[in-house]
Amino acid sequence: MLTELDRPAQIARVLPANPVVAIVGATGAVGVELLNCLEGRNFPVKALKLLASARSAGKTLPFRGQDVVIEELTEASFAGVDVALFSAGSGISKKFAPIAVRAGAIVVDNSSAFRMEANVPLIVPEANEAALSAHQGVIANPNCVAAIATTALAPLHRAHPIRRLSLVTYQAASGAGAAAMEELRLATEAALKGETYPHKVLPHPYAFNFFSHNADMDPETGYNGEESKVVAETRRILSLPELPVGITCIRVPILRAHGMAISVEFDRVVSPEEARALLGAAPGVKVVDDRARNYFPMPVDASGGEDVLVGRLRPDTADPSGKTLAMFVVGDQLLKGAAQNAVQIAERLLPQ
Amino acid sequence: MLTELDRPAQIARVLPANPVVAIVGATGAVGVELLNCLEGRNFPVKALKLLASARSAGKTLPFRGQDVVIEELTEASFAGVDVALFSAGSGISKKFAPIAVRAGAIVVDNSSAFRMEANVPLIVPEANEAALSAHQGVIANPNCVAAIATTALAPLHRAHPIRRLSLVTYQAASGAGAAAMEELRLATEAALKGETYPHKVLPHPYAFNFFSHNADMDPETGYNGEESKVVAETRRILSLPELPVGITCIRVPILRAHGMAISVEFDRVVSPEEARALLGAAPGVKVVDDRARNYFPMPVDASGGEDVLVGRLRPDTADPSGKTLAMFVVGDQLLKGAAQNAVQIAERLLPQ
Repeated sequence: MLTELDRPAQIARVLPANPVVAIVGATGAVGVELLNCLEGRNFPVKALKLLASARSAGKTLPFRGQDVVIEELTEASFAGVDVALFSAGSGISKKFAPIAVRAGAIVVDNSSAFRMEANVPLIVPEANEAALSAHQGVIANPNCVAAIATTALAPLHRAHPIRRLSLVTYQAASGAGAAAMEELRLATEAALKGETYPHKVLPHPYAFNFFSHNADMDPETGYNGEESKVVAETRRILSLPELPVGITCIRVPILRAHGMAISVEFDRVVSPEEARALLGAAPGVKVVDDRARNYFPMPVDASGGEDVLVGRLRPDTADPSGKTLAMFVVGDQLLKGAAQNAVQIAERLLPQ
Repeated sequence: MLTELDRPAQIARVLPANPVVAIVGATGAVGVELLNCLEGRNFPVKALKLLASARSAGKTLPFRGQDVVIEELTEASFAGVDVALFSAGSGISKKFAPIAVRAGAIVVDNSSAFRMEANVPLIVPEANEAALSAHQGVIANPNCVAAIATTALAPLHRAHPIRRLSLVTYQAASGAGAAAMEELRLATEAALKGETYPHKVLPHPYAFNFFSHNADMDPETGYNGEESKVVAETRRILSLPELPVGITCIRVPILRAHGMAISVEFDRVVSPEEARALLGAAPGVKVVDDRARNYFPMPVDASGGEDVLVGRLRPDTADPSGKTLAMFVVGDQLLKGAAQNAVQIAERLLPQ
């Protein structure tokens, strides 16, 4: 990410106890949640810089009872910044993350720009916190599906090695940003009135409709960019570079929580009871698996919450060996899928 | 279904060229589509009897430009009826289908009452039409997911035997009836106004939410009744009684089209190109698989249409052998998933 020549004499490895925090992309759907997470999780903040495009400069966002003025992101923005949380797309990250590191900041990047770079750890604290210590100024925050899935899979994988994985997703509008959330609301409102809404943000009608994920499709493989990212990142987070992973990513008309039907094959039979016990003791996971009441993970329960909800734990009947477990997982796309995971990473850079 | 003593001397085996048709449950979501299908497919109808509960008796429904008065369903309703299309729930079917057969009618039953009975063929014409000839007065119309899935799977299975199957569904409100469709509309309308809607038809909030299918859950197996039906019926329709089938059924906020991510393992490598060719030549299937335009099956395209849409054809990367194909399938739940399939069965009972 940084060439040898670019690299500053001293890369910041840990944060001071009371760091200066910058948020790049403060006005986006994830940016707003970064503010909420810093506040809600009592992250120590000496000073907060909100950075965005010139269009948003001068507006304010509230933080801990004060209005913070948004500044335009420039090459000079990172002087004195200890940690910069980036959520403004890959282009901005590629340009400004090296600048922030050279200015002495540690970058936690929510884009896909650096996620597969060897010297950039890709971190889900519940899954692979140990990998964090190798960072060289930039830490990558995973794709939302990979973050939510690995939070649920890591506690199982630690107990019994995973041999194969299948993911079929139910993905919310928020993954495509605040504008996509608004498009879902407006399109649905129009549909209920019998009107059609000219979609602009997403490539297909969204009201009462679902569709294959809008990321670019590889015409050779038949897999889209979202699916490729989830496969590569899940393998990396779980340290299973050869793991066979099947995946189908579908956008459903949901505002901000992602769901996924997961089938996971272990090297031995793992009972639902054992999986429930492992997950029940795992950080960041809440088991919601009430067969008697037919109550399982749902977006209405996951939205706005920090935990990844896991339920429908049962043997996958496609595998008569009993070694494959099926489950249904739902997590808030903007929180565990993005902002919360980034703030959790930053927390682990504070003096312990 | 009928005991030896119950059995009439002569069970009708085929229909006259211009039969008297009865619809049982004419006012339901499927009942209305049965009328549309009879009309749209030019099914020959000498006379039409619309049967429903006493509550609906006296109301009218339009058919071929005339208003047909709905009659109360009684034991005497089937005199002179050649074919009775039942769509009023299992209880009504169990009670009245034997009465209709004794009165000389052939019954095509949309409920789950008789689907697994040995002397009742379970038919998807595109998949197992040959099994129809063994009927003894009652023919079962499959569960909506099984009907849509087998329409897409049968042409592949005929060419290359299926060894294993996984289904993850995106199921519409219509599977729970017209009241559930209305609940989805009303709940969504309320949510957009910031209000909550007290759900009555489905057990969970439906606005911008998805949830594990509402059918009763088997507390032992962790599979719900919908999932068990789809597995049993899919095996029966494909004549693969031992097929390993994995399944997760999820209700999504969609009005009337079901989607499903299917993984299907064959006894050999089957390329997406070959699958596309087989499906392209198959009746009742439309291949919608445009990687360049990122255009694949969607509810907005499947709703109101007769074809099952199939796309996202690619090797399932969870199986490095290449023998497993992944695909995404969407079909109209009320048409191929119910009314249309029933009328297609009746068509095959007409003199050829």
